[in-house]
Amino acid sequence: MSSSNPPVRVAVLGCGTVGSEVVKLLQSSAADLASRVGAPLELVGVAVKDLTEIGPDMGLAADLVTTDALSLATRADVVVELMGGIEPARSAMLAAVASGASVVTANKALLGSHGPELYDAARRAGVEVYYEAAVGGAIPIVRPIRESLAGDTITRILGIVNGTTNYVLDRMTLEGLDFDTVVRQAQELGYAEADPTADIEGYDAASKAAILASLAFHTRISAADVYREGITKITAADVAAARATGHVIKLLAIVERLGSEGVIARVHPALVAENHPLASVHGAFNAIYVHAEAAGELMFYGRGAGGRPTASAVVGDLVTVARHRVAGGRGPGESTYLALPALPAGAAATRFQLRLLVKDQPGVLAGVSRVFAAHGVSIETVRQTAGDGANGVELATLTVVTHKAPERALRRVAAALRAEPTVAAVAGVIRVEGE
Amino acid sequence: MSSSNPPVRVAVLGCGTVGSEVVKLLQSSAADLASRVGAPLELVGVAVKDLTEIGPDMGLAADLVTTDALSLATRADVVVELMGGIEPARSAMLAAVASGASVVTANKALLGSHGPELYDAARRAGVEVYYEAAVGGAIPIVRPIRESLAGDTITRILGIVNGTTNYVLDRMTLEGLDFDTVVRQAQELGYAEADPTADIEGYDAASKAAILASLAFHTRISAADVYREGITKITAADVAAARATGHVIKLLAIVERLGSEGVIARVHPALVAENHPLASVHGAFNAIYVHAEAAGELMFYGRGAGGRPTASAVVGDLVTVARHRVAGGRGPGESTYLALPALPAGAAATRFQLRLLVKDQPGVLAGVSRVFAAHGVSIETVRQTAGDGANGVELATLTVVTHKAPERALRRVAAALRAEPTVAAVAGVIRVEGE
Repeated sequence: MSSSNPPVRVAVLGCGTVGSEVVKLLQSSAADLASRVGAPLELVGVAVKDLTEIGPDMGLAADLVTTDALSLATRADVVVELMGGIEPARSAMLAAVASGASVVTANKALLGSHGPELYDAARRAGVEVYYEAAVGGAIPIVRPIRESLAGDTITRILGIVNGTTNYVLDRMTLEGLDFDTVVRQAQELGYAEADPTADIEGYDAASKAAILASLAFHTRISAADVYREGITKITAADVAAARATGHVIKLLAIVERLGSEGVIARVHPALVAENHPLASVHGAFNAIYVHAEAAGELMFYGRGAGGRPTASAVVGDLVTVARHRVAGGRGPGESTYLALPALPAGAAATRFQLRLLVKDQPGVLAGVSRVFAAHGVSIETVRQTAGDGANGVELATLTVVTHKAPERALRRVAAALRAEPTVAAVAGVIRVEGE
Repeated sequence: MSSSNPPVRVAVLGCGTVGSEVVKLLQSSAADLASRVGAPLELVGVAVKDLTEIGPDMGLAADLVTTDALSLATRADVVVELMGGIEPARSAMLAAVASGASVVTANKALLGSHGPELYDAARRAGVEVYYEAAVGGAIPIVRPIRESLAGDTITRILGIVNGTTNYVLDRMTLEGLDFDTVVRQAQELGYAEADPTADIEGYDAASKAAILASLAFHTRISAADVYREGITKITAADVAAARATGHVIKLLAIVERLGSEGVIARVHPALVAENHPLASVHGAFNAIYVHAEAAGELMFYGRGAGGRPTASAVVGDLVTVARHRVAGGRGPGESTYLALPALPAGAAATRFQLRLLVKDQPGVLAGVSRVFAAHGVSIETVRQTAGDGANGVELATLTVVTHKAPERALRRVAAALRAEPTVAAVAGVIRVEGE
C-alpha cells in the first residue's frame, strides 16, 4: 500500500526542542511511518526563526530550511506547528487551513485562547486540527477523552499538567526546601525557564484546563474562563503541615461538570491524600485523573514535556491525519453540542484545610468551632500542635480540615476568624482534592 | 447533523453483566450518543441464551429479544458481541462481517486464539473490528497503542491485566493471608469465578498479552505463543520474602520486542519494587505500563472489569464505528507489516530472586556464590536471615537477587544449588521486573 500511494507532504514550523525531534523521527522511522500511514511522509520544509538554528547534524538539505513559515504553511498536506506563542503561529495555521492543509500542533497557549477560531476555520475548509501534544506531552489524553470515552459521560478531571511546578512542589515535599531555593535550582538545571511566570503562576496549566474542559464537556471553555492561582505563595510550612495530615501539595488543573448547570475550570494548589494515585506523580511527570460515570476512575501517566516525548505525540497525530488524507475519513472534530456555560470557581464545593495560629489557652477550640458553625461550614478534623513560645507569646497551631463547603462560605469563615481575639493568624488556606 | 442522517442499526449479542449495561447506556445516553455519532443509534435486537434473562426492568420490547444470535447478527450495521467464549461468538461475528456489519467485541479469549480469522474476514468485507474492552476493561489502551503511539516504537509493555489475580495477590500482601483462603473469600464475594482456572492459571492474561503484543509490534502473536505461569504456587512465605526486600508480587503480562529478532510474550508472577507505579495498583484495578522509544514510560490505569466500566469501552468503540458508517473513513486496521516471530520466554533476560534454605554454618555463602559464578549469573544482593531451629536443624534463609540473566542459566543454577550439600531447599524462584 505504501508504495502505490503518492507521498503526503509534511511541513514542520519551528525547529526547537520538539521540532528537531519530530524531524529526527520522520527521518529515522520513515519506513514504519509509511507502513502505518499507507504512503510515505515527505518532509517538504522546516521553518526556523534563524537559519543558524539548524546544524549540519540534522541532515537537512539547505533548500528545505526557510524563515518564511507563512509561505511554507501553504505548500503541504499536513502542517506541524511547533513555534509556540500566538503570532506568527496563529497566522501560519490559518494560512495552512485556508490552503487545504490539516494542522497538527502542540500549542496549548494558542488553543486555550484562540482555539475556536482555528477549529471553525478548519471545519469550513474541511480539514483537521489535531493536538494530542498540547496536554500532557507524550501522554495519550486528547484521543482517549474524545474517542475512547465517547460512550461515557465525563464528570471530572484532575490533572497534574505542568512538569515545572510538579518538580518544584515535589522537591519542597521530599527535601523540605523552600520555594525560592527550589525554583533557583530548577532554573540552573533547565527544569524551569529564566522567566518561570507561565508555569509557576498557573497560566500554562490554565490553557491545558481549558482544552480538557472543552473536550470532555463538549462546550467551549477558554483559558480566560479558568480560575487561576499559582504556587508562589506555598511555603515550606504549608508543605510540612500537609505532610503532618497525610497529604502532599500539588498544582492541579480541575475541570468538572455540574450537570446541565455548567462547567467549572480551575487551577490552584491543593492537598492530595498520600494514598491517592496523583500523590505518587513525582518530578516532571504528568498525570491526568478522569472520572466518568460508567468507566469510573481512570489515570493516564507519563512524561509531560521534553523534546522526544512531545514529538511522539505529535508524530502520532501526524500519522492519523496523514492516514485520513490517504484512506479517507475524518476524526471527530471539536464538538460544542452541550454548550455549557463556564461557572466561577466559587461555585465549586470543596474541602479546605486552614492553618490557624491561636493563643495556647483553654476555650480557643470552642470559639474557633463556633465561627465555622455560624457560617454553615462543617469541620471534618482538627489537629492541635503546641506552640514553641517564640516571640514571647504562647501560640499553638490548629490545623482544621472542613467538609465540602462553597468557597464564599469559607472566605467568610476566614474573615471572621481573623477578627477573633484568640486567633493570631490564618496562616494557610488550601483546598483538599481527590477523595 | 444527528436528525438528518438515518439511524445506525445496532445489535447486541449477549445480555449478561456487560451486555445489560451496554443496553442501559444506549437508552440513557441516546441523545449524547446521537450527537457524537452524527445519527441516532437504533437498537434492533438483543440476543440472549434464555428469554428469561431479560427482566421487565430493562425496558426492552419483547420483539427486540431473541435467542437466535446468528440471525440477529446479519440484521444490523454494527454488531456488539458480548457472549464470550469461542462458539457461537465466532460464528456470529463471522456472519455479521459477511453481511457487511462492523463488529465491536470484548471477547479476549476469541481474539487471542481466532483473532486473525476475524480480522481477515473483516478486511475482505471492508468492515471494522474494534475491541477496546478486550484488554483492561474501561482503560483506553487499544486505541492509544494503535493510534496515539503510531509515531513511536513500542519496546515493552508490562500489564496488570487480570483483576482477580491482582485482588488475590493484593490481599495476600496486605493481610498476610495464604492463597487458598483468599481465593475462597474472593469466590464468596464474587471477585473470583466458581472455577477460577482461567484467571489464576494466567489463561485470561495470556489472551490479553497476545492482543497487546500483536498491536504493539505489528505482528501476529496468539495466546498459544505466550509463556504462561499462574499464581497457584505463590505462598504467604513468598509474599513475605518479597516484602522483606521492598517488593510486591504481581501477576504480569509482559510483551517485549528484541529489535528485529522477534517478540517475547509471557505471563507469570513477578516481584515489582514497591516504588514502581505498578506496585500501587490495588484490588481489582488494572494498569498497563508502556515503554516507547520516544515517549518513554506511560501508564494507563483504571477498572479492568465489571459491567459498567467494560460497557464504557464497548460503547466508545460503538460510537467510533458508527461514526465511520455515517461520515466515512475507517480506523487503522490490524497491521502485520513487521511479521516478527514469537520467541520462547527463555530468550528473555530478567532478574531473579531465589529463596534458599541453607545450613546455618560458616562458608555457606561462599559455596552458593561459587555456583552462581560458575553459570555466569551475577549476584546483585544477598540477604541472610538466621534460622529458627525448627525440625532440630539450624537452617538460615538466603534471599538472592541476581542481575539480568537468561532463564536457562538460572535453571542450571537452581539445579546445581539443589545438589549442594549445604543447601536444604530452593524454596522460591521468581522473576524481578519493572526496574
